[in-house]
Amino acid sequence: MLNRRFAILTFVFFSSFWLSPLACAQSDPLPSWNDGATKSAITEFIARVTTEGGSNYVAPAERIAVFDNDGTLWSEQPVYFQFAFAIDRVKAMAPEHPEWKDSEPFRSIFAGDVKGALASGKKGVAEIMAVTHAGMTTDAFAGTVRDWIATARHPKFARPYDELIYQPMVELLAYLRANGFKTFIVSGGGVEFMRPWVENAYGIPPEQVVGTSGMVTYELNGDKPVLKKEAKIEFIDDGPGKPVGINRFIGRRPIFAAGNSDGDLQMLQWTTLNDGPRFALIVHHTDAEREFSYDRESQVGKLDKALDEAPGRGWTVVDMKSDWKTVYPAAKQ
Amino acid sequence: MLNRRFAILTFVFFSSFWLSPLACAQSDPLPSWNDGATKSAITEFIARVTTEGGSNYVAPAERIAVFDNDGTLWSEQPVYFQFAFAIDRVKAMAPEHPEWKDSEPFRSIFAGDVKGALASGKKGVAEIMAVTHAGMTTDAFAGTVRDWIATARHPKFARPYDELIYQPMVELLAYLRANGFKTFIVSGGGVEFMRPWVENAYGIPPEQVVGTSGMVTYELNGDKPVLKKEAKIEFIDDGPGKPVGINRFIGRRPIFAAGNSDGDLQMLQWTTLNDGPRFALIVHHTDAEREFSYDRESQVGKLDKALDEAPGRGWTVVDMKSDWKTVYPAAKQ
Repeated sequence: MLNRRFAILTFVFFSSFWLSPLACAQSDPLPSWNDGATKSAITEFIARVTTEGGSNYVAPAERIAVFDNDGTLWSEQPVYFQFAFAIDRVKAMAPEHPEWKDSEPFRSIFAGDVKGALASGKKGVAEIMAVTHAGMTTDAFAGTVRDWIATARHPKFARPYDELIYQPMVELLAYLRANGFKTFIVSGGGVEFMRPWVENAYGIPPEQVVGTSGMVTYELNGDKPVLKKEAKIEFIDDGPGKPVGINRFIGRRPIFAAGNSDGDLQMLQWTTLNDGPRFALIVHHTDAEREFSYDRESQVGKLDKALDEAPGRGWTVVDMKSDWKTVYPAAKQ
Repeated sequence: MLNRRFAILTFVFFSSFWLSPLACAQSDPLPSWNDGATKSAITEFIARVTTEGGSNYVAPAERIAVFDNDGTLWSEQPVYFQFAFAIDRVKAMAPEHPEWKDSEPFRSIFAGDVKGALASGKKGVAEIMAVTHAGMTTDAFAGTVRDWIATARHPKFARPYDELIYQPMVELLAYLRANGFKTFIVSGGGVEFMRPWVENAYGIPPEQVVGTSGMVTYELNGDKPVLKKEAKIEFIDDGPGKPVGINRFIGRRPIFAAGNSDGDLQMLQWTTLNDGPRFALIVHHTDAEREFSYDRESQVGKLDKALDEAPGRGWTVVDMKSDWKTVYPAAKQ
């Protein structure tokens, strides 16, 4: 035992001298990104804005970076994960709602036919969202989200949903923060759905999450104040709503933005079409084997206009298949 | 010259040995607060929540402190400063609006009769706010706020408005941050009106300001994206709206809250009526000489219900006259 410990200590001690090329490789802040133009574009931008005295230097307070979530920080196929959560909630709530048995979109859900439920259109989807996302306190809702994240499994990968986050993007977030950036999520997803788990997954605290939100009302019941979630949308943080949400919640114009769909187009425009150094990144889903492959024709995460606009605007497009060494982090157990 | 410099250096050097009681007094984090029960309540709370291993220890991430602005961090008499800004803007915009000359509430404003303008009621006030706070880009509006803060003077004190901030509260904010707190403004005032100057005044960055907001829309004009302010209220961050705003923008429940009026009542309830260590502070305006004296009957900053509720809830009430050594910071020049 002692010998083995000594051998390890010796190895650790000498490796710092002898294995310096390895040590350098290990200190790469973006180890899950393959070397190439995409990775270089990122690291060169960060070097430019953090070099004091340089013409592109940006003061730390102005280093605001915004990230879409669905399809940019975690997967979004075959359906948005928040919709998968809603489907599971409908099933869990079914015993208290015998009246759902015979009516759409619930009947399709109980029959395991998610496409059928979606076929009920906006009205059906709105009903699913309303019954699963309203009528309870914010605390109770956060509890159902935490339970679901802990227990649900993705149909293709059979892993918890919060393990289907993109390891290269988690590294990018940490790299930005290590360089003085404040990182925000700006997502079309529900803000109350994201906050319970994103801090642990991405290192982004709840107060740096901007998302779609429903109306909430305050009630004081005796000595117990609660916030109740109502079945009414308050703000849709998607498309042109993203720069609006950035202005409302952050109040500074970002210098770095990442997205993956046309819902991010206006956020990328707002971030980049301004003076000074600016950076925009689009995650292009090109990897059917390790993740999913989709863009212009997809129902979920459609990427069409933003992909056309990218070259002219100087936006960096990530080719998931060739730019990412790994997609997901290693399983936790 | 040399002798004098030597004498000063000698003094500084020896004072660290000989004048240690003075040195201690100088390291008081709240020098503008008189010693007494109010100051002790604050410092004892901070000691409790920051003592690792103590039963009341709170992890830094959960150390959220929220502050009302008008009447809590700066003065609000004789009219809310944002209304004074709006009045000045109406006067500045008058040459482009000859039609205002003969109609209320503008006629009263031009006659120097602010009370007359206010007598036009909600409709008149809404019109004043609409013409001065909408119809321009967010950038243009921020510019008018910065210009006004730089040039306008308060009628009673003849000082710039951002010098009528409360020195004891500025110290409290810094003291909280030095103890790992994240400090937020949660104000009924307009978020776009506060953000241009609060960072400099209080050390609170734009992304930590929650306030009342108007609708904003995104437009892309060629290669120039803008956000336009519309004459429509989006969110009123007052009364029961304050816990709603805290939930929407911060997403964590604060453990420390400060306010001064009934508009803060629900924020103080939401902050304190929960498990664990909690602290609420009410600034009571008792100092007619150095500031203003008002509470239950005031049109601006009415403090009635919250004052009644304070003793039973264990909220700390600041008596401005006796608790504060100074009210405002020294003039900048």
